[in-house]
Amino acid sequence: MAVDNSILTELDGVFPANQARSREAQARLLAAGERVFAEKGYDEAHVSDIAAAANCSVGSFYRRFRDKEALFRALHMQFILRIGRNMARFLAMPEWSDKPTYEILRTLIGNSARVIERHHGFFRALFQRTLAGAGSSYILALRVADNESGRLLAAFLRERGEGVGEDLDETCILALRTVDAVLINRVLRRQITGDTVAPPLVVDMLTRMLAAGVGVTPPD
Amino acid sequence: MAVDNSILTELDGVFPANQARSREAQARLLAAGERVFAEKGYDEAHVSDIAAAANCSVGSFYRRFRDKEALFRALHMQFILRIGRNMARFLAMPEWSDKPTYEILRTLIGNSARVIERHHGFFRALFQRTLAGAGSSYILALRVADNESGRLLAAFLRERGEGVGEDLDETCILALRTVDAVLINRVLRRQITGDTVAPPLVVDMLTRMLAAGVGVTPPD
Repeated sequence: MAVDNSILTELDGVFPANQARSREAQARLLAAGERVFAEKGYDEAHVSDIAAAANCSVGSFYRRFRDKEALFRALHMQFILRIGRNMARFLAMPEWSDKPTYEILRTLIGNSARVIERHHGFFRALFQRTLAGAGSSYILALRVADNESGRLLAAFLRERGEGVGEDLDETCILALRTVDAVLINRVLRRQITGDTVAPPLVVDMLTRMLAAGVGVTPPD
Repeated sequence: MAVDNSILTELDGVFPANQARSREAQARLLAAGERVFAEKGYDEAHVSDIAAAANCSVGSFYRRFRDKEALFRALHMQFILRIGRNMARFLAMPEWSDKPTYEILRTLIGNSARVIERHHGFFRALFQRTLAGAGSSYILALRVADNESGRLLAAFLRERGEGVGEDLDETCILALRTVDAVLINRVLRRQITGDTVAPPLVVDMLTRMLAAGVGVTPPD
């Protein structure tokens, strides 16, 4: 799913990409940045590696981004835009009307696993920056987006007459964050453990856990 | 709970601490290392910071540890020893005989939260090293210890006639890892988010999730 990247030029250090060719180079550099971050980590990734992975010159990189941090800032904004839009689209899918909520939660977990896997490089960089003490605004902005996702899920459950607790918004926010924490950890450690991110046993268990967390009854 | 530190001298770069005074300095340096890692992160922590936090000289540090990495190696080994022992002791507590399993799981989560909180510095350093690509042996050794904890929990549940699935060992391992992932994330981000690590809403939700994950019925 493509993101409307025009908002990226609002970010500090991300330069306007007005022409199609320039926007295309920007998108290629963003994708290359994620690949290089996934492979080497943020600190070890050099602008020259990212440019090479994007088939761009280093000069072309610096016409689009002030530095590596500006590219990361753009990845972060892209990801935030994706979070809200993905959840809204997912819950609005017409086929849910005759599916048990439990199965919808299972599909949601599978989707989250794929998204997190695809953005391995972003998460590796995010965690490195956060742990180095540089990432507080990134974490807080992501949290606002995650909270919105949790509220969307709570509204969806309420409409279906499911979900427990007076604090259903807060419960959904926490339960989704739990599932994401597990999946992100699995992705970040995959190179070490050799594990598949979301094999059936893990998806089954996370579905049971998410359903219990938010108060959705499993099918008999 | 004190750990028998004699095994630490088996580790590369950790020098023998034969006299009481030397063992005491080693223990003080280990505790100081965790505090400094928690505050500054691994990469920014200098040996001189750790020595100062332990009220030791830099020379005293280097008589006990070859370098910062050797101190981290010792913290990691201490933590691994703690994991197996804590779970075995916890499950063997006589008061569980007349308590519902659900309540035992809740207590287990509260304990895990406190242990992870206490070892914030170890986890911050572990994640930093892992994400920088330096931590694979640390992660794999921790995983062996975590797997053993999961098997202990599975055996405990079987003995009580609870727990579901043919793969109960694997299910318990994954479910405990899930709970730990959430708690570790909460601890690592606490400085940014200002959240309490394990407020009642979070403990309640994690208990529901863990119980559903391993197949323990909640009380009516």
